[in-house]
Amino acid sequence: MKNFLTTALLLLTALCANSQQVHWSGSPLLSPEINPDNSVTFRLFAPNASQVEVVGDFLSQQLIDSPFGKVEVPGSASLVKDENGVWQYTSAPLSSEFYIYNLVVDGLRIADPSNVYQLRDVSSIHNVFIVPGERGDLYAVNSVPHGSLTRRWYNSETLDMNRRITIYTPPGYESSKEDYPVLYLLHGMGGDEEAWPMLGRTAQIMDNLIAEGKAKPMIVVMPNGNAIQEAAPGESTQGMTAPTMNLPKTMEGSYEKAFPDIVKFVESNYRVKNDKSHRAISGLSMGGFHSLHISKEYPDLFDYIGLFSAAIMPLTETPSSFYEDTDKKLEVQFQKNPKLYWIAIGKDDFLYNANVDFRKKLDENKYDYTYFENGEGHIWRNWRIYLSMFVPMLFQD
Amino acid sequence: MKNFLTTALLLLTALCANSQQVHWSGSPLLSPEINPDNSVTFRLFAPNASQVEVVGDFLSQQLIDSPFGKVEVPGSASLVKDENGVWQYTSAPLSSEFYIYNLVVDGLRIADPSNVYQLRDVSSIHNVFIVPGERGDLYAVNSVPHGSLTRRWYNSETLDMNRRITIYTPPGYESSKEDYPVLYLLHGMGGDEEAWPMLGRTAQIMDNLIAEGKAKPMIVVMPNGNAIQEAAPGESTQGMTAPTMNLPKTMEGSYEKAFPDIVKFVESNYRVKNDKSHRAISGLSMGGFHSLHISKEYPDLFDYIGLFSAAIMPLTETPSSFYEDTDKKLEVQFQKNPKLYWIAIGKDDFLYNANVDFRKKLDENKYDYTYFENGEGHIWRNWRIYLSMFVPMLFQD
Repeated sequence: MKNFLTTALLLLTALCANSQQVHWSGSPLLSPEINPDNSVTFRLFAPNASQVEVVGDFLSQQLIDSPFGKVEVPGSASLVKDENGVWQYTSAPLSSEFYIYNLVVDGLRIADPSNVYQLRDVSSIHNVFIVPGERGDLYAVNSVPHGSLTRRWYNSETLDMNRRITIYTPPGYESSKEDYPVLYLLHGMGGDEEAWPMLGRTAQIMDNLIAEGKAKPMIVVMPNGNAIQEAAPGESTQGMTAPTMNLPKTMEGSYEKAFPDIVKFVESNYRVKNDKSHRAISGLSMGGFHSLHISKEYPDLFDYIGLFSAAIMPLTETPSSFYEDTDKKLEVQFQKNPKLYWIAIGKDDFLYNANVDFRKKLDENKYDYTYFENGEGHIWRNWRIYLSMFVPMLFQD
Repeated sequence: MKNFLTTALLLLTALCANSQQVHWSGSPLLSPEINPDNSVTFRLFAPNASQVEVVGDFLSQQLIDSPFGKVEVPGSASLVKDENGVWQYTSAPLSSEFYIYNLVVDGLRIADPSNVYQLRDVSSIHNVFIVPGERGDLYAVNSVPHGSLTRRWYNSETLDMNRRITIYTPPGYESSKEDYPVLYLLHGMGGDEEAWPMLGRTAQIMDNLIAEGKAKPMIVVMPNGNAIQEAAPGESTQGMTAPTMNLPKTMEGSYEKAFPDIVKFVESNYRVKNDKSHRAISGLSMGGFHSLHISKEYPDLFDYIGLFSAAIMPLTETPSSFYEDTDKKLEVQFQKNPKLYWIAIGKDDFLYNANVDFRKKLDENKYDYTYFENGEGHIWRNWRIYLSMFVPMLFQD
């Protein structure tokens, strides 16, 4: 019976709409295949295609000039067709990472039909794969205790809206009676409450760092930072509309003003240590901007602040009253000696110079902060690294 | 600054790897577009392609003969290319539903690059869209109170494994002090703990039925029914391996034997009413088989049993001792008068005759059950309908 059912379902699947590609030999086509030397082979069965390329962040990226300075674009490589219509390309051995890619078939960019592992980044779908090793293993699911990841809704009185929020609770949270510190982790422009858990591999990073004893068990709160949205695309009453980077009210104070609603929700719904020394806030790009302004506006809330590739702006050009007197408010914030003010950015980030200017201001005022700079630019690869570095510094005393 | 950042990020996205297609006019290509008359337009920019088709369950399905009886295959339709290289097809007005589709470009089946809404069904990725109306609205996110959806892990002592589980708690669960009834909702072969929440729209259906007063607030537990797996593909230590329908130990008693571990976990971690009259179990296909055998093996556990397109087998052919004496155990189960024993199947299901035989056995023994039959076959469209029908019958007294 088991065989009958399996065979019937396989047949049904094959007849219906199976996008998993099957090799001419009858076995499924494997793509990507991580080889023993950590090279990666991509395959596509497309006998009618004239050209197939793979575009991904594992290929040497190019820096090109733009009105905003140099920006990185992923490299591409050509697949070669064999006599059976299977296109194939094998990369050089790759360093351990969580990579993204797409295939391009006669100019049409698609997701690899043989790889079900895909992530949405704003309005794009990318395939993903992990090359094992030190960094890749940090982003993988390992044999360690796992926390819980919950999608739920909170009421924002300030925004007069029910809003979706993603919350990681560490392993053991449910069965213990302890109170936990909290990290508020904010996404960038075009992101939402799905960005850090999906592209950022937050639950995997937290599980692994906690298991290794490198991070304290903590709650990680991933809100939606777009004041206009109830929830991520497809998860709200807006329905399945096309996601856009271009939302109103993302950097004009509304979200930052309403942020205490989130803290209040978390602290009345979870067992938390609700004092400054047990609260951290960090974010990438726009989320770094939000972290900067929320933490300076409420200088008694957060003892740990992380700006990852932060969209730090010329502060005089901003429209909201929320951003008025920023220098004065920063002075108040730093007088209160936050335990960690951490700034991280890649050398090739188009926001690099804005961060240089901001650090100059902090230096001139002798404000205490920690700075980390690495290569590459405004990409998720860096934000996962920054999260992995930031978290171990939190709540250590 | 906001404009600077938006523009820079849009540029970065466009340069990097944006799979969202852009029309020659510069605006994003809309696909699918639900028109006011509920016809749907599909578009693809592929100037180099020779043929583009859409394959989906909204097109008239064909019944074809197979060794297992008639099976349904989705219909297809051709897109037509305009002078700008944009292919387009508009369907007839569609009835309200949650539909799936793929595009086929010169024989290559792909996901629509303009539609970020995609779901994995075993090893296939399908695009999805909702046509609004009575049924589609039941599967959509509406302005109603929302429950929480949590991915967490439990320890199965019997299987000696930590295992992932998806749990829906109804709106208000966290803030109330009430105890709730529990529905255990099981997936089919090739599925996992992501099947019901994603393909089955469980959270949306529950939120909407509860808001309309049609269902009691309840907890819905969606376990992983593959005894060999810790978790869904990509969510376990197996890493990002290709999903397969062909797993060992799915219908040989291991999972059913270990099921009390799940009940124990739920009842010691959630505020539940822990008696027979507040427990329900149901499942689709293999999950219907599991529901049949778990409920008959533990006749004091469940007062509500739902078999959705159940993989009911000729019981003498099964290998496990768990399936021995099934007739005798069914007799015991029905002597204890379960409040609802609900069987549902589509007329075109390849398991239709097996269900006829099973009902004949129940009839011969004068066991009390309720039967629902509709059109179509072994497809998710039916399983969402069955869930929507089953849930309102639960825990009503």
